[in-house]
Amino acid sequence: MMHSPHRTHFLKALITCVGEAHLLTDEAAKPFTQDERNRYHHPALAVVFPKTTEQVARIVQLCANHQPPIAIIPQGGNTGLVGGCAVLTHRDSILLNLSRMQQVLDIDRDNRTMTLQAGVTLEQAQQTAEAHQLLFPLTLASQNAATIGGNLATNAGGTQVLRYGNMRDLCLGLEVVLPTGEVWQGLNRLRKNNTGYDLKHLFIGAEGTLGIITAAVLKLFPAPQQTQVAMLAAPSVAGIARSFDVLQRQFDAQLTAFEYISPSASQLVCAQFNWPPLFSNHNAHVALIELSHAQPDASLNEQLQNQLSQLIDNQTLDDVLMAQNLNQANNFWRMREHISAAQKRTGPNIKHDISVPISAIVPFIEQTTLTLEQAYSGIQPIVFGHMGDGNLHFNISCGRAFATSEQLMARERDINNMVYEKVTQFGGSISAEHGIGLLKRDLMPSIKSAVELNMMRQLKNTFDPLNIMNPEKIITHN
Amino acid sequence: MMHSPHRTHFLKALITCVGEAHLLTDEAAKPFTQDERNRYHHPALAVVFPKTTEQVARIVQLCANHQPPIAIIPQGGNTGLVGGCAVLTHRDSILLNLSRMQQVLDIDRDNRTMTLQAGVTLEQAQQTAEAHQLLFPLTLASQNAATIGGNLATNAGGTQVLRYGNMRDLCLGLEVVLPTGEVWQGLNRLRKNNTGYDLKHLFIGAEGTLGIITAAVLKLFPAPQQTQVAMLAAPSVAGIARSFDVLQRQFDAQLTAFEYISPSASQLVCAQFNWPPLFSNHNAHVALIELSHAQPDASLNEQLQNQLSQLIDNQTLDDVLMAQNLNQANNFWRMREHISAAQKRTGPNIKHDISVPISAIVPFIEQTTLTLEQAYSGIQPIVFGHMGDGNLHFNISCGRAFATSEQLMARERDINNMVYEKVTQFGGSISAEHGIGLLKRDLMPSIKSAVELNMMRQLKNTFDPLNIMNPEKIITHN
Repeated sequence: MMHSPHRTHFLKALITCVGEAHLLTDEAAKPFTQDERNRYHHPALAVVFPKTTEQVARIVQLCANHQPPIAIIPQGGNTGLVGGCAVLTHRDSILLNLSRMQQVLDIDRDNRTMTLQAGVTLEQAQQTAEAHQLLFPLTLASQNAATIGGNLATNAGGTQVLRYGNMRDLCLGLEVVLPTGEVWQGLNRLRKNNTGYDLKHLFIGAEGTLGIITAAVLKLFPAPQQTQVAMLAAPSVAGIARSFDVLQRQFDAQLTAFEYISPSASQLVCAQFNWPPLFSNHNAHVALIELSHAQPDASLNEQLQNQLSQLIDNQTLDDVLMAQNLNQANNFWRMREHISAAQKRTGPNIKHDISVPISAIVPFIEQTTLTLEQAYSGIQPIVFGHMGDGNLHFNISCGRAFATSEQLMARERDINNMVYEKVTQFGGSISAEHGIGLLKRDLMPSIKSAVELNMMRQLKNTFDPLNIMNPEKIITHN
Repeated sequence: MMHSPHRTHFLKALITCVGEAHLLTDEAAKPFTQDERNRYHHPALAVVFPKTTEQVARIVQLCANHQPPIAIIPQGGNTGLVGGCAVLTHRDSILLNLSRMQQVLDIDRDNRTMTLQAGVTLEQAQQTAEAHQLLFPLTLASQNAATIGGNLATNAGGTQVLRYGNMRDLCLGLEVVLPTGEVWQGLNRLRKNNTGYDLKHLFIGAEGTLGIITAAVLKLFPAPQQTQVAMLAAPSVAGIARSFDVLQRQFDAQLTAFEYISPSASQLVCAQFNWPPLFSNHNAHVALIELSHAQPDASLNEQLQNQLSQLIDNQTLDDVLMAQNLNQANNFWRMREHISAAQKRTGPNIKHDISVPISAIVPFIEQTTLTLEQAYSGIQPIVFGHMGDGNLHFNISCGRAFATSEQLMARERDINNMVYEKVTQFGGSISAEHGIGLLKRDLMPSIKSAVELNMMRQLKNTFDPLNIMNPEKIITHN
């Protein structure tokens, strides 16, 4: 690791680039070097806060030209859940935090696009669109801190993917500082552009390992003028899955959210926050659904009510609550959004962000629950998530199986293996929306073929031969 | 080039792999070595028709291991318009035609996906979806011959992109035979999967230069149960553009097509096919629009009629025709779809498949037309296309400027330069949906930065170091 005089010399060069006020070390750097769940907290040489693309490029050049090269960890809102911004213990690294790059570079109402610097927060991006009577649809729990650059680097998801897609689908163009310090200017504002390899897809979802996204062109949509939120209760998860199929066939793109909440998840939220249960049957499987339409359309509610009545008549559903006003709609969403917070109150627990084909959701939940129960009688899966995308947060609480969280967490590896084995069996993914980072990196050889891992390494080695760009994330270096 | 005994030896090896009936040479090969517009027609060593992925891999190995290596040109329906399947004059090449690989590998109604071999035609793919009451939305003029593999390799577009996206957006997973002969098995059926670099995007739109797509997982959608087609007439292209903005804000995803037809284009079609004009004003700018809904909804037509009446009242539009039945709707589409055929009847003409930001369509058309008129007084642009995507087919006929097509075509390079200069000035693309192939390859240095070209070359050299996979397409080798 770098000795003190060298370190001072290098930091001076960084300060020359960004100014003394925009470089933090030691104690001041801690909020940036420690992650959300406090799994990672190794110190970096410094946290640097550039203001312009040119400064980012200059910093990358400084790190690349240093002997030995300094690792660069790009950072947005530091809200990631898999250690994508973790500082490595065995390499000199800087955190390159883009939160000062907050400019709205362009907004084009007729083209339905906006061009933003990477440090704009997701919430600011939403508000920018809203100010022009348009919608930027990505919606996440951490949107007040998460940045556009981070959302792109992790291909963020959330609750509106069903209708509008992941962050990858919402991006038309990028500006990227490459590991060489060159700037790739790809701020394309076109819907259609078949002129060679579409390079933006290299960087979206690459978690900062191939370059630093400094700006992006994002798609905008007509803002819905009417929204209807409802809660559905079914006797089984199969009833919820069947309702999804029926409702999506009827409403297509107007069905903008379909979130599943297991009986254990709603019981947990009600118990922790002392809220009354939504349905008289406390063991109901619940779905929160949202219909949206670009213009007020009275017939939409009527159509929904008719369809839900039929689903009750044929016993697919037990019960239905239609939000009568915005307040009630917010209450329904609050139930869904407080599941993580409720879990946090009960102490550490085991989290899985998985996806399976939508057709496999019912057998996956049933079989995985059974497998876990056979191994740990009384264990409590808390299952919820974006069912319309096949994406479940399949979390595990103690239940009657463990007296303490510590006892549960001691079995984490074993429980992960059981869940991931089922995921793989159903052709699913062990990371639907959170990414790989450092946390899941060592699982990659077990879920990817040698051919695929080799292609990923070839990409990494080609574009980052010095291995300076967020090294050791996603895949190990050879 | 290969001498006869070597040639015979190599062809024998190929025959051992696919069987004698599935290899064509000389005269029999001509329908495959000659492209749609007969721009390219150099003979290949052979056209080979494998049936399985294993055969494709074996063929690639044979070509890679040959001294010197044999170039491989992957081919689907041979409907491309930019010489993507052109046989090079200076290298021994085989055409690897995937049309025998026609298996439907999987269809999953609840997951809204189907898995197809690459040689399935687009029309067969549409019909497969339809048989399961689902929609595969990609729609192209050449769909009876064009294949899924070719559609993916060229990131095909068409008339439904506005709602459903390009082929890239419709693909969840791929199986690809790499230039090494290895098979990348990436037939992912998931909507969300953030586990490292999303490798399928390397191959989609790469025109077969990085590997051979042998199978794909495609997204399906609820099949619309109601469709409303209408023709709009406006005094100017600005009126058409304004109508697009208003209608998309009102109908959002229900607006599934928005096609522009210039006055010259509708006049040409009516004259060539002896059809009566749609509107009394022969100089009207026309849009063909389509609204779709997943379920019958009587209010949709009413809403559309109300909105169009307002657009007439405020003089954005002059006139409107609503299709009263399927027959009328088909007639409207026929007008749009016969523009290319009408142009073909008048002899060779100059074609441009360009895109600009939607907000730039009006000034782009106006200024480009003016520039051309100033250079060639009386020249006739025939403009039409997918206006809702910013994609125009900006074609050029003789008009009064040239007595013969030959005289027009003699100025092709000059006219291309004028059009592409305007495209570039408005931040547009010189190939919105047809790709680069051989035809537009030499324009790449003028439209891409050195940084971008270098990244493309790095990708090509990394994955195809022998330069055997559709070489010299998109970009030249070094």
